[in-house]
Amino acid sequence: MAQEEVQNGGPEKVAEVSFTALKPQLMVEAPKAADAVQFYKSAFGAVEAGRTVYPKRKAEQEQPHVLSAQLELGGSTILVSDIADNSSPVKTEGTGCVLCLETEDVEAAIAKAVSAGGVAEGEVTEGDGACCGGRVGKVKDPYGYVWLICSPAKKCGDAEA
Amino acid sequence: MAQEEVQNGGPEKVAEVSFTALKPQLMVEAPKAADAVQFYKSAFGAVEAGRTVYPKRKAEQEQPHVLSAQLELGGSTILVSDIADNSSPVKTEGTGCVLCLETEDVEAAIAKAVSAGGVAEGEVTEGDGACCGGRVGKVKDPYGYVWLICSPAKKCGDAEA
Repeated sequence: MAQEEVQNGGPEKVAEVSFTALKPQLMVEAPKAADAVQFYKSAFGAVEAGRTVYPKRKAEQEQPHVLSAQLELGGSTILVSDIADNSSPVKTEGTGCVLCLETEDVEAAIAKAVSAGGVAEGEVTEGDGACCGGRVGKVKDPYGYVWLICSPAKKCGDAEA
Repeated sequence: MAQEEVQNGGPEKVAEVSFTALKPQLMVEAPKAADAVQFYKSAFGAVEAGRTVYPKRKAEQEQPHVLSAQLELGGSTILVSDIADNSSPVKTEGTGCVLCLETEDVEAAIAKAVSAGGVAEGEVTEGDGACCGGRVGKVKDPYGYVWLICSPAKKCGDAEA
């Protein structure tokens, strides 16, 4: 994959942006994500590479909600996440699949997508991004799909396979 | 990626199956797929690797419907397809994103997924699969996602970038 030079143009300027990964993220009604991961292992031979859970819920629930489970399948990575109420920043209406794009320059990537006709939703947030990245923003494209623009994934927490 | 030996077990037997590619396929209300492809190029720098159109419609429509456009993005491939009426075998209800998995043994892969709790939908069909593969079958998983199980892609038709 050709890497283009990333220009740090800031949000006002349309910069060249390159993406280092694309990961479909499948949203599953909580708390079924753990079951879904098991299904993808059984059905397709997916291999779990990592899993992060919502720490808050560990004490109060039998099965902690899955923020993001990373599965290797067909040479790609998919993410499986529990969606509950308003607990997730990536809740979508209608379609349960969002697309995570990793890039070194989240703001420039969002600015470029917006200049092309996408709509930025919410703020760029730090921390427990469902993509396992450090920073994550959201762009809805004109065709209804939601793209998460994330900084490259930190190594996912300990796998709970 | 480790390649497992594919056992030609047929539909009755749960075989070892390996997948050579996973491609999210984004369904777009016809005839907007061509516009969507242009958007993904402008917004994310996606590179079109090929496009097949519905040949029947070429004469009667200004813009032929897109059966499948292949876009390279972030080291992965996504497919963008027009969905119109009942013209596509991969029409889905609710979610517009399906996941194409390529494998050498479509029937064994479907049988394995069904034995794990998936539901096969329709027959395995030959020919103009929206994944650009030769043969394609469909499995709905218990969490609402549709997986297309396809034989490896024939080279897509001439790119109309």
